[in-house]
Amino acid sequence: MESGSEKWNFQGNKKLNASAVSVRRVYNRLMEGINNNQDKKPVVRLCRVDPTDNPRFRTTPEAPDAVATAVHSYNFNSYPPTVGLPEAKRAIASHLSSDLPYQLSPENVFMTVGGTQAINIILPVLARPGANILLPRPGYPQYDSCATCCLLEVRYFDLLPHRGWEVDLDSLEALADDNTVAMVLINPSNPCGNVFTYQHLKRVAEIARKLGIFVISDEVYAHVTFGSNPFVPMGVFSSIVPVITIGSLSKRWLVPGWRTGWIATCDPHGIFLKTGVVKSIISYLEITSDPPTFLQAAIPEILDKTNDDFLSKNINMLRESANILYDLCKEIPCLSCPHKPEGAMAVLVEIKFSRIKDIIDDMDFCAKLAEEESVILLPGVTVGAKNWLRISFAVKTSDLVDGLSRLKAFCLRYSKMP
Amino acid sequence: MESGSEKWNFQGNKKLNASAVSVRRVYNRLMEGINNNQDKKPVVRLCRVDPTDNPRFRTTPEAPDAVATAVHSYNFNSYPPTVGLPEAKRAIASHLSSDLPYQLSPENVFMTVGGTQAINIILPVLARPGANILLPRPGYPQYDSCATCCLLEVRYFDLLPHRGWEVDLDSLEALADDNTVAMVLINPSNPCGNVFTYQHLKRVAEIARKLGIFVISDEVYAHVTFGSNPFVPMGVFSSIVPVITIGSLSKRWLVPGWRTGWIATCDPHGIFLKTGVVKSIISYLEITSDPPTFLQAAIPEILDKTNDDFLSKNINMLRESANILYDLCKEIPCLSCPHKPEGAMAVLVEIKFSRIKDIIDDMDFCAKLAEEESVILLPGVTVGAKNWLRISFAVKTSDLVDGLSRLKAFCLRYSKMP
Repeated sequence: MESGSEKWNFQGNKKLNASAVSVRRVYNRLMEGINNNQDKKPVVRLCRVDPTDNPRFRTTPEAPDAVATAVHSYNFNSYPPTVGLPEAKRAIASHLSSDLPYQLSPENVFMTVGGTQAINIILPVLARPGANILLPRPGYPQYDSCATCCLLEVRYFDLLPHRGWEVDLDSLEALADDNTVAMVLINPSNPCGNVFTYQHLKRVAEIARKLGIFVISDEVYAHVTFGSNPFVPMGVFSSIVPVITIGSLSKRWLVPGWRTGWIATCDPHGIFLKTGVVKSIISYLEITSDPPTFLQAAIPEILDKTNDDFLSKNINMLRESANILYDLCKEIPCLSCPHKPEGAMAVLVEIKFSRIKDIIDDMDFCAKLAEEESVILLPGVTVGAKNWLRISFAVKTSDLVDGLSRLKAFCLRYSKMP
Repeated sequence: MESGSEKWNFQGNKKLNASAVSVRRVYNRLMEGINNNQDKKPVVRLCRVDPTDNPRFRTTPEAPDAVATAVHSYNFNSYPPTVGLPEAKRAIASHLSSDLPYQLSPENVFMTVGGTQAINIILPVLARPGANILLPRPGYPQYDSCATCCLLEVRYFDLLPHRGWEVDLDSLEALADDNTVAMVLINPSNPCGNVFTYQHLKRVAEIARKLGIFVISDEVYAHVTFGSNPFVPMGVFSSIVPVITIGSLSKRWLVPGWRTGWIATCDPHGIFLKTGVVKSIISYLEITSDPPTFLQAAIPEILDKTNDDFLSKNINMLRESANILYDLCKEIPCLSCPHKPEGAMAVLVEIKFSRIKDIIDDMDFCAKLAEEESVILLPGVTVGAKNWLRISFAVKTSDLVDGLSRLKAFCLRYSKMP
């Protein structure tokens, strides 16, 4: 019998292929390019924000101990409850409340398979025919892919590089209409590396209230700050506007591979309940997968036993890396970093094309850099910043210095200057 | 400032609420009903197929040991590769190949957050405007919910209770048209409890080939068989028709809460590659969450070290439970079990409404049974079998006997007979 592939003259979902613009895809492509070149320098990866690529960024022993204890207890092998394990929800509610002017209850918390699934849940929950959502530009492409998949129109408001990546409040207000359901803010900011001030967040909340739209506050980098602005959760302003907070163990506990996150509804007036948003979240959770039960069971102990020294040591390492990156960037012709990073684990740097030759755009820049120097950076276009570069600094200092020195050599080679 | 909920006059996604018909939702509702009644008999849950509700069904110590070792190594805290950890893919390919006439390669395997996410990936991958999919009736409602969400039209073919729940092959053929992309078969069958024969599966494969449609074979209960029909994976017939196999650790290793599953493309002629299905699977994985890296890392050891005694002990317990259930059912008036279960962990039993009074349908039956007897069964309507009941037998023998004795008392109370 012959293979008969002509019988299945069907194509995979092309819309899916097109909508899947992701850091992962670009990272995979750039790595493939490098893997085809054997006789090269060691690869320096400043592309992906995964601190565990760096042996210095190692989670605290209490975390794997808590997981091992939970899995060895044999008490957490059954399906988790739809909305998450009560003890995990209670611990997260209490953890988040310590930064808020009021107490969250466990009912405000929904467990998710990392921040990614939190996004993949909350956007379809808000989608309806004709609806639109306001996303920051630069931003995080998972929001764009997910919005495309659930037919939610995307409108972008700008973050302003020369005002410390603050929201362009006028453009925000001009974008919204009666079909706008929500806006997204990422704080501390990926990919910009800034931390929004209390006053600025309050202004954003007031505008969202005026527009009648919800705020989705992506706080997966909560408390990962090392500049002058402290981390302020958007939930502080939830008496002004209902806030959906997205959080995760990934970044602060240095375990992105654990895929353990949450959605928290910060909503003292119960508006998410009244408008059916809570019901839709639960409906979605009923037909989707969950974080493993034993991982959820480990959360109370992880949150309770994590030592302040562990957290402050990591912050100090990130501050040091951010300083090195910022200082070395100044010495590289053709690049410009408008704002010194003060939070999260990556920063945006602009390519000055007026000073560069033989490179078409940021994608071309990153492809040539990978090929010639085995340094992997993320092209800004992936995060809505065409002709910029996203550089992760949650890496070994020696890798950072080595990578930036190769980046400098590369820029000198392509510089228009003599 | 007043609460201003009138500003957010927006409703959660109603389509989502409507499409989320799930075992979970019905289970949650019935449990809520019971929780409101305090002074009742102890609850007997024969609703959910979660063997860990029963202390006799405990996973093998090698499994949590492998997980604890992986998490304590600190080597698996980073994001997993998009398609899954290579060592996990290799181990699963080899594990599945032992039942196939050819070798699967690691490239055929994609790691998923349980069987649920495997369904949630593969249906959108096959969806395109106007497309339809053939689902078994009775079946598993996750397929229906997911198809609704991705706008894939659902058409049902019947499984025939009085022919051992075989596929009605004529109805299968009559349903398909040029827009049919695939059919789903669940083997061993949830909710019917039968195991399809080699000859019957071969006939299904031949018809699918003739129709030019792919076969999605849901084998989360692979090897969970205790009757005369051995488990035959659909992949055995993948030279006839390309097969997508869905598998999981959940049932055979008694760890549904670990949420660790996979998709395997059984496709010796490479048709999934040629038609872009593999590319779409990868695109989807790029924008979705994953099973934790350390859980993936534990898979080779779990598959390698699991003792045959552990697996056969569980099979013997299930056989014993299935026999008790089948025999006790015969003594209950108004109920009829057309086919003795020979696989999986649940069976369908018909309610004979001609012999019963004061009960409207299966949903009413289960609600009254929960209220009056604190016994939780799944109404058949949830799995496409209106006026049937799904009874899980992966429970303690004493619970099974107790639950069925209360079920009998209930049926006698509502019987039309004197």
